[in-house]
Amino acid sequence: MKPVRIFVTGGTIDKVHDPYTETLAFAADGSTQIPEILHYGRCHFPVTQIVMMLDSLNMTDEDREKLAGAIRDAREEALVVTHGTGTMGETARYLAKALEGTSKTIVLTGAMRPFSLFHSDGPFNLGGAIIGAQCLPAGVHGVMNGRVFEAGKLKKNTDLGRFDL
Amino acid sequence: MKPVRIFVTGGTIDKVHDPYTETLAFAADGSTQIPEILHYGRCHFPVTQIVMMLDSLNMTDEDREKLAGAIRDAREEALVVTHGTGTMGETARYLAKALEGTSKTIVLTGAMRPFSLFHSDGPFNLGGAIIGAQCLPAGVHGVMNGRVFEAGKLKKNTDLGRFDL
Amino acid sequence: MKPVRIFVTGGTIDKVHDPYTETLAFAADGSTQIPEILHYGRCHFPVTQIVMMLDSLNMTDEDREKLAGAIRDAREEALVVTHGTGTMGETARYLAKALEGTSKTIVLTGAMRPFSLFHSDGPFNLGGAIIGAQCLPAGVHGVMNGRVFEAGKLKKNTDLGRFDL
Amino acid sequence: MKPVRIFVTGGTIDKVHDPYTETLAFAADGSTQIPEILHYGRCHFPVTQIVMMLDSLNMTDEDREKLAGAIRDAREEALVVTHGTGTMGETARYLAKALEGTSKTIVLTGAMRPFSLFHSDGPFNLGGAIIGAQCLPAGVHGVMNGRVFEAGKLKKNTDLGRFDL
Repeated sequence: MKPVRIFVTGGTIDKVHDPYTETLAFAADGSTQIPEILHYGRCHFPVTQIVMMLDSLNMTDEDREKLAGAIRDAREEALVVTHGTGTMGETARYLAKALEGTSKTIVLTGAMRPFSLFHSDGPFNLGGAIIGAQCLPAGVHGVMNGRVFEAGKLKKNTDLGRFDL
Repeated sequence: MKPVRIFVTGGTIDKVHDPYTETLAFAADGSTQIPEILHYGRCHFPVTQIVMMLDSLNMTDEDREKLAGAIRDAREEALVVTHGTGTMGETARYLAKALEGTSKTIVLTGAMRPFSLFHSDGPFNLGGAIIGAQCLPAGVHGVMNGRVFEAGKLKKNTDLGRFDL
Repeated sequence: MKPVRIFVTGGTIDKVHDPYTETLAFAADGSTQIPEILHYGRCHFPVTQIVMMLDSLNMTDEDREKLAGAIRDAREEALVVTHGTGTMGETARYLAKALEGTSKTIVLTGAMRPFSLFHSDGPFNLGGAIIGAQCLPAGVHGVMNGRVFEAGKLKKNTDLGRFDL
Repeated sequence: MKPVRIFVTGGTIDKVHDPYTETLAFAADGSTQIPEILHYGRCHFPVTQIVMMLDSLNMTDEDREKLAGAIRDAREEALVVTHGTGTMGETARYLAKALEGTSKTIVLTGAMRPFSLFHSDGPFNLGGAIIGAQCLPAGVHGVMNGRVFEAGKLKKNTDLGRFDL
């Protein structure tokens, strides 16, 4: 059994409905939905750590360097990163370069529909990413919608509304 | 990318609420919820095949032999079996013996709470099993609640209400 | 604006899934789901009071007398009773007799599918019952599935799986 | 038993999540969620008619006149109007004037959170509005969050995130 750490960076998976503005936004208190997904998945062993809470379209290379640093500092070898779908591939490629030769397995994941709206792909994706982080070889991968992607090939298919080949 | 086939055998994951009897039962038309889980997981490539629709406490070795035959006949190398939690371990051990030396990766999964009731661990588990079927070595495994179990160690923790070590 | 009191007696609306026994049962701690339905209905003014927590098939005339007493003692004129569907009509007719000439409006309601399973008729029915309790004349009524029933005509249509004429 | 007609005008209750733009919008095919709310409420008798599909902040007096005409033309005496929360009060007051002396009971309702996101107040409100349309006197009313409002007093409490006094 491998210990798993989940780094939260925000993204659609963590958006909630705000009835005041009638938009989707991060929770006003900066909290994450990931522990609730784990709770319903009856998956109690991963550690969840918020690194930032960003729409991934606003993520800069400075943010990515901060994430790389958190990964380097982690004691766990099996790491999941929750991330917005818009630039998940860019972050994967940044991390693959920044962490070249790492002994750790890093798996990026997220959702096309926020978890808090139900009928979300978030639990399905996070369940897959946690297994991927324990089974895949060292390096940076993406797990979305039932597939494993190498960092170089991780990209949202905007037409299909999912991550696909 | 590996083709994945899902063998449905029933179990809690596939139960629905019957308002007439006010119990949980399989759908009267014998249908499965798995395609709906895949739909919300935005995971469109696995083939779903119903082998039987049983409460796993009623599963006999004859049923298990039928399942082993379906696995042998499958063209895919990556196979998921949805199964009741009550005897998932017994079936895993039966298959491990019956399919010794197989080149295929077989992953058993299921749920503690039916998918149709929401807040189910089913999508989380199925998402994990589909990734496990593509990443794990040949042989029989269980994927439940974020963990990978060897066939010999797959067992519901009735006290905790989940699969755990 | 009329103050509203909700008397909880149990029934399907209040059942939850128990993953240990894989059945539907009342919460082990005896709690009710009604405040959660009110919360999501953004309806904060009714007072909720548990009178008993019973499957209505097990409700006796002694239980019904206890309920009638609670209704007599209430200071509010607008009262809702949540109740199992199996004997909702019997209780309505018992109360109509026991409370003959009352100045209060009493509305029985419940659900064909437990609230905790989602896709329940519970919020729709409770929302209707609370409005009915404020608008209907004094006496005992049922509100289910969009209709108002006099006590004498309140009956589950078992074939249709709903309350209907 | 009174026949009930539901006029759909759009509003938050009918918004769905669009994974492409990651916003809340009306369904691309112009369809309404109201029949699905009725389905889960096991309420099969009202007729649903789409009059327009608008964010109520964009509703003009020309739109309101069109709605008043549809109400005048309806054969039913019990009418529900689903409407955005932003200008529900304005429309109620417009209709109260335009339909002065009507023999019909008109009830406006809607939701603070879209039905399609679950945990919505939509089913609770619609269930209340359908009962209100059958029980309230002729004229224009609002039913939201468990309360009945006269047209003159119908107003969203933006601070509380609900309709209240």
